[in-house]
Amino acid sequence: MKIPEALLAFLNRERKFFIATHINPEADALGSSIALSIALESLGKETIVYDKDSVPEIYRFLPGQERFTNSISNSIRRGGQISNLILVDCNDRERAGLENIEFPYSSVIDHHETAREFGDIKWIDPKAPAAGLMIFYLIRGLGAKMTEDIAINLYSAIAIDTGTFRYSNTTPEALRIGAELIESGADPSLISENLYETWTENRFRLLLKVLDTLEIIDNVAITSVTIEMFKETDTAAEDTENFTGFTRMLKTTKVAAFFSEIEKDYYKVSLRSKGKINVAVIASTFGGGGHRNAAGYKIRSGLQAAKDALLRAIKQM
Amino acid sequence: MKIPEALLAFLNRERKFFIATHINPEADALGSSIALSIALESLGKETIVYDKDSVPEIYRFLPGQERFTNSISNSIRRGGQISNLILVDCNDRERAGLENIEFPYSSVIDHHETAREFGDIKWIDPKAPAAGLMIFYLIRGLGAKMTEDIAINLYSAIAIDTGTFRYSNTTPEALRIGAELIESGADPSLISENLYETWTENRFRLLLKVLDTLEIIDNVAITSVTIEMFKETDTAAEDTENFTGFTRMLKTTKVAAFFSEIEKDYYKVSLRSKGKINVAVIASTFGGGGHRNAAGYKIRSGLQAAKDALLRAIKQM
Repeated sequence: MKIPEALLAFLNRERKFFIATHINPEADALGSSIALSIALESLGKETIVYDKDSVPEIYRFLPGQERFTNSISNSIRRGGQISNLILVDCNDRERAGLENIEFPYSSVIDHHETAREFGDIKWIDPKAPAAGLMIFYLIRGLGAKMTEDIAINLYSAIAIDTGTFRYSNTTPEALRIGAELIESGADPSLISENLYETWTENRFRLLLKVLDTLEIIDNVAITSVTIEMFKETDTAAEDTENFTGFTRMLKTTKVAAFFSEIEKDYYKVSLRSKGKINVAVIASTFGGGGHRNAAGYKIRSGLQAAKDALLRAIKQM
Repeated sequence: MKIPEALLAFLNRERKFFIATHINPEADALGSSIALSIALESLGKETIVYDKDSVPEIYRFLPGQERFTNSISNSIRRGGQISNLILVDCNDRERAGLENIEFPYSSVIDHHETAREFGDIKWIDPKAPAAGLMIFYLIRGLGAKMTEDIAINLYSAIAIDTGTFRYSNTTPEALRIGAELIESGADPSLISENLYETWTENRFRLLLKVLDTLEIIDNVAITSVTIEMFKETDTAAEDTENFTGFTRMLKTTKVAAFFSEIEKDYYKVSLRSKGKINVAVIASTFGGGGHRNAAGYKIRSGLQAAKDALLRAIKQM
């Protein structure tokens, strides 16, 4: 993995950085940003770590998660401008909810396929299994110490984006870096417990209701959640994190689709695929995006019409 | 990992081997046995690979699984004796259903904690995450080629016993060997799909019924299946493979227990634990066994009495 010289020079030269990542952040976005912040500060730099949304409850085990702020402080926002942006795990301002801010100088570190034109320095590697893997090399390239806190953040980042080494992006390199991160202090079982085994009973009951909605049509496994179900189980949309992937376990599933009601006739749709079907392309036809095997979009329509539109789009692939 | 010299000498010296593993075999038992058979045969040896039970449907993707036989041929059984036994992933004759056969010369390769006195050559390493890891070193020690078929079997073996690198037995070494096995031809996503994502719809409906039985008592998450549920969903006991671990996802779960009705007032009980609770010890009080975080036993009693007995045993830990 080749780090652009301009990126290293930029990080070595400047003293203050504004690290931002995408809305609805998960462990790759969060862990990568936190790890980079810890490493840069260990080299005497100052960082602000920003996400428009708060850190979801389930990711609050990440050491250093309290670095995240969702307010853009006045000290940084000089006349609506922020310099020295480092955009992590996304590659345009909109994904970070920063569309109204000007960035006189900015860098991008991302592994998503749908690259936009934003950024003075761009390091976009769609072959990287996780942004966390890129940050691992970057931290090493900067000569910062791989501390236990950094290791936990990067291991979590790589774990969530590879399904802890189950998805097709699991490379020998990802496993070897995982091994190094364990040696630097990441505890794989503690991290897996935190990522996958900290469900509340309410969330579990919600999952059962969602799985009961299963329909299988043309190898597409469709599940859905309604606002009513959230009420019945005292849960919220953030409790459905990772619900989409459950129906991948069915042998016949080629695409798993999960429809989450945001408001009447407005749905968030999450897609997961097995094998070669590129759901990022399907999501982009509805104005969304993502990775080959995990993508999403939002749609204003009734549930049945939204399902039908998706099935048509998949058929046309 | 130190392979006993006597084991290498035995495998190099002899020409015919009877490789056997435990009843109710899973991917570690199966993959380790198949890999060893392929490697020994590549060195000009003859092997018979034995399991008392058939290879479960979900493990028939393992290349070389057709090597398994569940009949002890007369050519081997000279007067009720079998020489040159290699017992894999278990360490006594009973676990392999071979209690009535004499073994004039035998070796044991295992990583279970509850070691018995059986075997002329014993290589028992409870620190090994999987028997597959031991076989990896053994194959290298024998100088056999690490073929794609061997790699797939060993990767599957390590994957199933570490929860694909999620359990507390996930070591840097396990990840690095995983990386080597990918380089030798194991496809991590294809293996994960085969291990976790080949469910029939009937099996999925059975899981939903089982999860609906959830009770949480003193941080023990209890689920159960009845013969009636098997009938309703056209499934059988082997379809409940991996059901026990599902309720580990609940934050409050310290022990996950799954009661499977074999016949009226007779249950198979599977236990999984998080963290430090040693369920092998609990299972052994009921005449069963296993690993620290995964164990099981059978009990003749009604369901409620069986649950109560387990809860008492856990409390006394």
